Amino acid sequence: MTASTPGPTVLVLDGDPLLRLGRLTGRARIEHVDASTLAARLPYADVLLVWDVASRAVRDAWPGEGPRPRWVHIASAGVDHVLCPELAASGAVVTNARGVFERPVAEYVAALVLALAKDLPRTWDLQREREWRHREALRVAGTRACVVGSGPIGRTIARTLKALEVTTSIVGRVPRTGIHGPADLDRLMARADWVVAAAPLTEQTYGMFDARRFGVMQPSARFINVGRGQLVVEEALAEALRKRWIAGAALDVFRQEPLGPDSPLWQVPDLLVSPHMSGDTVGCQDELGAQFLALYERWAAGKPLLNVVDKNRGYVPGH
Amino acid sequence: MTASTPGPTVLVLDGDPLLRLGRLTGRARIEHVDASTLAARLPYADVLLVWDVASRAVRDAWPGEGPRPRWVHIASAGVDHVLCPELAASGAVVTNARGVFERPVAEYVAALVLALAKDLPRTWDLQREREWRHREALRVAGTRACVVGSGPIGRTIARTLKALEVTTSIVGRVPRTGIHGPADLDRLMARADWVVAAAPLTEQTYGMFDARRFGVMQPSARFINVGRGQLVVEEALAEALRKRWIAGAALDVFRQEPLGPDSPLWQVPDLLVSPHMSGDTVGCQDELGAQFLALYERWAAGKPLLNVVDKNRGYVPGH
Repeated sequence: MTASTPGPTVLVLDGDPLLRLGRLTGRARIEHVDASTLAARLPYADVLLVWDVASRAVRDAWPGEGPRPRWVHIASAGVDHVLCPELAASGAVVTNARGVFERPVAEYVAALVLALAKDLPRTWDLQREREWRHREALRVAGTRACVVGSGPIGRTIARTLKALEVTTSIVGRVPRTGIHGPADLDRLMARADWVVAAAPLTEQTYGMFDARRFGVMQPSARFINVGRGQLVVEEALAEALRKRWIAGAALDVFRQEPLGPDSPLWQVPDLLVSPHMSGDTVGCQDELGAQFLALYERWAAGKPLLNVVDKNRGYVPGH
Repeated sequence: MTASTPGPTVLVLDGDPLLRLGRLTGRARIEHVDASTLAARLPYADVLLVWDVASRAVRDAWPGEGPRPRWVHIASAGVDHVLCPELAASGAVVTNARGVFERPVAEYVAALVLALAKDLPRTWDLQREREWRHREALRVAGTRACVVGSGPIGRTIARTLKALEVTTSIVGRVPRTGIHGPADLDRLMARADWVVAAAPLTEQTYGMFDARRFGVMQPSARFINVGRGQLVVEEALAEALRKRWIAGAALDVFRQEPLGPDSPLWQVPDLLVSPHMSGDTVGCQDELGAQFLALYERWAAGKPLLNVVDKNRGYVPGH
């Protein structure tokens, strides 16, 4: 903290983006805070940059006393971990990292779809056992995917799967050109070989993938979640896999992260677990820093911000 | 064998395609043979259908005495296992399964590229250990691939990688529009993040991926072979991986198949092993049978065959 620096005060929560914010030196007071120091510093901040997607610190600290930052930037696509009712009701503008994660997440989904179709997990198990066992794999081209989530990530996933010749439908909150509404979800899930969850976590999407929905899927189908853990009733998914209602699943996000070593999810049959990394690629930290700086220039110049979250809906409304 | 059936005699080597050839019933004498009975029956056959890509039986039996079939159809893309000098010098027409394996092999290569970029093998190792360890993955879009082999399989691989926004070059025997010649190979390999071997096995391609060629690759690059095992000097690849000259490799084909349990290749660091299955998808046996029947109709009608192998070059010359 350099008290003599003029300009707005920017709180950086749980980040180490010193180098990346170097361009603000002398123009803003950059203060690094963590969950334990956030509440005390919030009243003195003009801007809050939330770096760690897993932190609940803003939800805890925001409802306190005193003035609040005018702008909160969240360096992730989902904003559910930050957007408490008091922040939603406040005058603060909330922005997110739209534009950074679309392509990586879409590639991750394509990687999972292809790995499952080609039975790669089993192949590498057999390699460990030094066993040559030829199988016939699935042809991905011509299969059907249902992508749930019509934001830029869901749409990029759909475009990427289509490039692999997968027949792909998108389901969103509101039907529009090229996007199905919730009324079509069960029918599309029942026909899909791949159901991909990429929706924001909202009241409407909480627990939407439950026993009934896994029940409408085909026994040969696979479920993939790269959205938020809370979209899924995890016990129902585990049960659907154990009972062979569906052929497999891959989860990159969980209700409780990190998944503890005692979680039963590590060993559910045909369930692939990855540690919330679908969007994170080498260089993305720099990209997130550059994105914040570009938004900061607009904010400092009094121009309208981009990637502005609709605080009632819980995501950036779009196209 | 039904001696009373009129029409040509079709030998089926190592296949169980009875159902699929049902349309020939009453029009041809279908005889099933294996490596032990092929030589004795060859002189009485008009057509030889070679079903098993791994069998060397034709190489052993063809050079014998007596007349030979006029047409040999090989139900695979590569023909090296069948095309002995005596068959090449004979009047027999040789055809292959062009058109069946392109898409599956391309999907398999895309699956490997994405799985390596997203570090999926490590993720699943960590799952087994119940360990949550977040890493940053690679973004595939914007990386560079060099596909060696300019036949329909190599070109379909290139098209599929391009659909994933990978900058992709193809190297073939002869430079032409969109295809680099062998003179560009080292330069392209040196710049590539992914080197994909999808060439036919010929005198020119035997052992082309040797210590020198792995030496020109980037330390961050990966090598993938879906062509033929003999394209690669396996000991040199293992050494390149152990010395970290390259970051990883995936082999679907091997000099000796099946790979025995004692092979050192199962445990080379950062080497993924799969049992020659890149082209084999559910339904492909039916597709291969249907393709032979379609060719048979042309042959029986005296029309020119399709997919005719240039027996000097060792592949179907093309576009």
